[in-house]
Amino acid sequence: MQDFIFQNSTKIIFGKQKEQLVGQEAVVYGKKLLLHYGGGRIKQSGLYDTVVKSLQDQGIEIIELGGVQPNPRVSLVREGVALCKEHDINFILAIGGGSVIDSAKAIAAGTKYDGDVWDFFTGKAAISECLPIGVVLTIPAAGSESSSGTVITNEDGWYKKSSGHNTMRPQFAILNPELSYTLPAYQTACGITDMMAHILERYFTNEKNVDLTDRLCEAALRAIIHNAHTVLEEPTNYDARAEIMWSGTIAHNDLLGTGRIGDWGSHDIEHEISGIYDIAHGAGLAIIFPAWMKYVYKHDVNRFVQFANRVWNIEIDMNNLEKTALAGIKKTEEFFKSIGMPITLKEAEIGEEHLEEMAKKATENGPLGNFIKLYETDVYQIYRLAK
Amino acid sequence: MQDFIFQNSTKIIFGKQKEQLVGQEAVVYGKKLLLHYGGGRIKQSGLYDTVVKSLQDQGIEIIELGGVQPNPRVSLVREGVALCKEHDINFILAIGGGSVIDSAKAIAAGTKYDGDVWDFFTGKAAISECLPIGVVLTIPAAGSESSSGTVITNEDGWYKKSSGHNTMRPQFAILNPELSYTLPAYQTACGITDMMAHILERYFTNEKNVDLTDRLCEAALRAIIHNAHTVLEEPTNYDARAEIMWSGTIAHNDLLGTGRIGDWGSHDIEHEISGIYDIAHGAGLAIIFPAWMKYVYKHDVNRFVQFANRVWNIEIDMNNLEKTALAGIKKTEEFFKSIGMPITLKEAEIGEEHLEEMAKKATENGPLGNFIKLYETDVYQIYRLAK
Repeated sequence: MQDFIFQNSTKIIFGKQKEQLVGQEAVVYGKKLLLHYGGGRIKQSGLYDTVVKSLQDQGIEIIELGGVQPNPRVSLVREGVALCKEHDINFILAIGGGSVIDSAKAIAAGTKYDGDVWDFFTGKAAISECLPIGVVLTIPAAGSESSSGTVITNEDGWYKKSSGHNTMRPQFAILNPELSYTLPAYQTACGITDMMAHILERYFTNEKNVDLTDRLCEAALRAIIHNAHTVLEEPTNYDARAEIMWSGTIAHNDLLGTGRIGDWGSHDIEHEISGIYDIAHGAGLAIIFPAWMKYVYKHDVNRFVQFANRVWNIEIDMNNLEKTALAGIKKTEEFFKSIGMPITLKEAEIGEEHLEEMAKKATENGPLGNFIKLYETDVYQIYRLAK
Repeated sequence: MQDFIFQNSTKIIFGKQKEQLVGQEAVVYGKKLLLHYGGGRIKQSGLYDTVVKSLQDQGIEIIELGGVQPNPRVSLVREGVALCKEHDINFILAIGGGSVIDSAKAIAAGTKYDGDVWDFFTGKAAISECLPIGVVLTIPAAGSESSSGTVITNEDGWYKKSSGHNTMRPQFAILNPELSYTLPAYQTACGITDMMAHILERYFTNEKNVDLTDRLCEAALRAIIHNAHTVLEEPTNYDARAEIMWSGTIAHNDLLGTGRIGDWGSHDIEHEISGIYDIAHGAGLAIIFPAWMKYVYKHDVNRFVQFANRVWNIEIDMNNLEKTALAGIKKTEEFFKSIGMPITLKEAEIGEEHLEEMAKKATENGPLGNFIKLYETDVYQIYRLAK
């Protein structure tokens, strides 16, 4: 087990109608905030009105910035930073899913910095301080509601890059599973894939003595798999929605990664796709993760056997461990397909014309991943396996 | 799933020699602290010197209070409160296991209160504020290093009572598995039993839709069981000690209980034993928990079947679920025995003379437990099953 520091202070407020508490949670941080959100769904659903009322009841002044897109853009982040500086704002409330929260986090870091916020994503500057953030979660997927990271896309060259800092974790996150009832099946499935990928990135490690966290990862994966078809078939099933929502947070709150070095290669490989093609991150992961698994499993067949056996109940063939490992990968792929995800680039209508360019761009700052290091040719081969 | 609020801000600093960082972590809270510990083991091992040096290097003034006993006493807590008030102390550093940390927590609450600290344990007063606490953990067991509760014994009548508040969670906890190398096998096993009991108390719930946390509980139990014999046979096996130490924290950091109502009857029943007989809490739990299981399993045979199957790999006999449930209880009992725990009162040299009195005292403020409510006669029957 690796040495580690773990601290996750996000206050999780979980349950029915808990969005009504947002005002009293937010007012602790001041009487003026930036309300950050995406498109019209929260206005149609009435959530926007509920939140605004709760804030106004506490006498909080609201500066608004909507319009966050999936794969959130640095241009809007810059707009947010300017607004926060202009209005001397010291709290940001994000209503939405991972994109809105990530955008809010980048604004929170940028407001405390004199230079351009993109510096944090190129490595030119390091985050040391952020405005405090609160969250009302509407999409269980990214786990950004209690994570320390953010992923932002720069339209100038379509770079999708991550950054983070422990002070970036939201102060509070309100998780009401009812708010996910109206999520379309496709988006629900993208979220399920995303949270599974967050666990898998941590699971495939070279650390040999990580028994507890291995088992916790397997437990969370099994819970997600067990509840996935239920939420797709019964979108207003509170209990299944609750399991999925809480799983999405736990998948990415860093506890499951304690003492381990995760891989994260698949995320980086996928970022090139959703950076260029603007497909949902989860869908991109459903395509890339099985391809990555096929490309790397020989590096540690036993770990893939454990995965096949403990997560997918596949009997271990001691005479043919490789066969067991491959059966686990196949099950993963079939599962993504069963929840409506594309599992090839072709199914996502992505051709082969940019694969070389994406492989080059993905590795321009060095090789990807930790389970095994992936260079440009490796990444290209993974795209080819996914085509 | 029940609605819940979850916030655990304790900073975990995990790994080899991390006790050397205690000064720099503590100095954040001021230049004077109460150093709280138990007996001579930390002086023999050199840990005391390491900690004092690290504190002095930061220019921290140390007021000392040693002498914490297992089942920590309110008399010493009162002494600590007086010291903190007299010296205007605003930080407490606990070096030790659950008893020392619990004692420190009670001092932390008592210092912020004008009345007698025992009021918090009788329900006469509620905790609203605590001095901040830091921990250097030496005994993986109680999980007190990141929990919100404390258990204190009042020698005047031998009452063992619990209290707690979210502000009671330590600010930081330093977990170096090496510090547990010198723990005797019996104490190691008591710790293992204690952490398993913390998970089992949460596991046996009447909540029906708690799939994720069920699986996380099972994962942690399996990790503890998997590593238990290794730490007993190879006390200086870092990896196994690390798994056990981190499991002990996770067993009781409240994450595994989110959305559930735990039972806690066995803890209350056990407290009477270790309150009167001063045996280790873990040993008492090894005696009481299987007896409790035998007494209550018919209330929800299916949950006990799931436990037997998922934790102990017992094949489910669909023609005789009760048999499967009982096999799981037997396995639990056998496991405690295999790690050297007593599993009957007799083995712990406890006779029958106080059973009626303990049952009466345990229930004098009302019935115990949540899985099923236990009244005086129930508690007496459980003691009888354990004799």
